[in-house]
Amino acid sequence: MNFLEERIVKDGIVKPGNVLKVDSFLNHQMDVALLDEIGREFKRRFADKKITKVLTIEASGIAIAYPVAREFGVPLVFAKKSKSINIEGEMYVAEVESFTHKNKNKVIVSKRFLGPDDHLLIIDDFLANGCALQGLITIAESAGATVEGLGIAIEKGFQIGGRVIRNFGYRLESLAIVDAMDVETGEITFRAQD
Amino acid sequence: MNFLEERIVKDGIVKPGNVLKVDSFLNHQMDVALLDEIGREFKRRFADKKITKVLTIEASGIAIAYPVAREFGVPLVFAKKSKSINIEGEMYVAEVESFTHKNKNKVIVSKRFLGPDDHLLIIDDFLANGCALQGLITIAESAGATVEGLGIAIEKGFQIGGRVIRNFGYRLESLAIVDAMDVETGEITFRAQD
Repeated sequence: MNFLEERIVKDGIVKPGNVLKVDSFLNHQMDVALLDEIGREFKRRFADKKITKVLTIEASGIAIAYPVAREFGVPLVFAKKSKSINIEGEMYVAEVESFTHKNKNKVIVSKRFLGPDDHLLIIDDFLANGCALQGLITIAESAGATVEGLGIAIEKGFQIGGRVIRNFGYRLESLAIVDAMDVETGEITFRAQD
Repeated sequence: MNFLEERIVKDGIVKPGNVLKVDSFLNHQMDVALLDEIGREFKRRFADKKITKVLTIEASGIAIAYPVAREFGVPLVFAKKSKSINIEGEMYVAEVESFTHKNKNKVIVSKRFLGPDDHLLIIDDFLANGCALQGLITIAESAGATVEGLGIAIEKGFQIGGRVIRNFGYRLESLAIVDAMDVETGEITFRAQD
C-alpha cells in the first residue's frame, strides 16, 4: 500500500451506499502534510510532462490541486460550479451532473485563463462516475488546450468514470483505486498498481 | 505598499459597483507563490498565537487557508455552503448572506472537527460586509473554540464588515485594506497600516 492507501485504511470510513468518508483528512478537515505528499507524488508521476497550468474544480479539488501547482511552479485555475456576478465576460461552460449531490451544475472557467498554449494537468480529489472530470476535459478542449494528464486522489474503481476517461485515451493516474468496500467489516480492497 | 497591495495595483481591475476583480491571481486563477507569501505573512502576524486549526469557507478561501495551515503545521477545516449527503451526523450550522451572490447560505462544519480545545485562526480571501466571517465566528463560538484571530487577504474598508468584527473585539488582520476605488481612473487607495 502507498501512503494514501494506508491513510484511507487508517482513517477512512465505509458507509452504506458505497460511500467512503475521508472527511477527517481529505475533503472537509484536511491534513496539509498529506496533501503536500500528494503534490510530490503527482509531480513524480507526471515528471515527463511540461505542465503550464493545473486545472481543478471547487471546492475540495482546490486543496489537492494547490500542492500540485506548487510542485510544478505553475498557476492553479479552478472551475466554478455556478455563475458569479464577479465573473464577467466570456467563459467556457460545461454542464456536469454530480453523483454525490444528484444535481446538475454548470461548470465555468473564464476564457482569460485557458488557451491553446496551455498544457494542463487536471486534478480532483474523487473520481466516481467522472462527470466533473468530463466537464473539466470539455472545458480544456473548448480552450484548445492540451490535456497532459489527469490526477485523482481516490478513484472508485467499481464505478464507470475511470474506465470511460481511460477509454478516451487520457492518461489518468489515481493514487488509490478502491475496487471494493465492505460496509459490514469496513474492509477496503485497493486495485494493485505498479 | 506591501507585496499584496503591489500585486493588486498591478493586476487588480476596478469595476462598477465597487467590484475589485482579482481573479487573475487570487480567486479563480491563483498564483501559488503569492499565496505562499500570504501564508508566511499571516504566520508572522499571528506568531504569538498558539493555533490548533485554520478555519475557512469554500471555495476560494481554501487556497488562502492552505499555505497558512501549512505554515502553522495544523489541519485546515473548511466550512461548506450547502448540505452534502456525504456529511452526516451533527453539524454546526450558521446562516450567512452573501454580499456577492445576494443569496443566503447555510454554512456548516462537522462537529467532529471543531471543539472546545481548538484555538482557531479564521482565514478568508475577501471581507466586505463580513457575513461569511460572522458565520465562521458563530460556528467557532458554537464549538466552544477560541478565535485567536482572523486573517483576510483583501478587506473593503469602505464596507462595514471589518468595523463590525473589530468592534466585537476580535483581532482582525487584513493584508490589504481598500479604502477607495475609482472606476474611472482605476486608482485604488489603500489604508495605511503599521
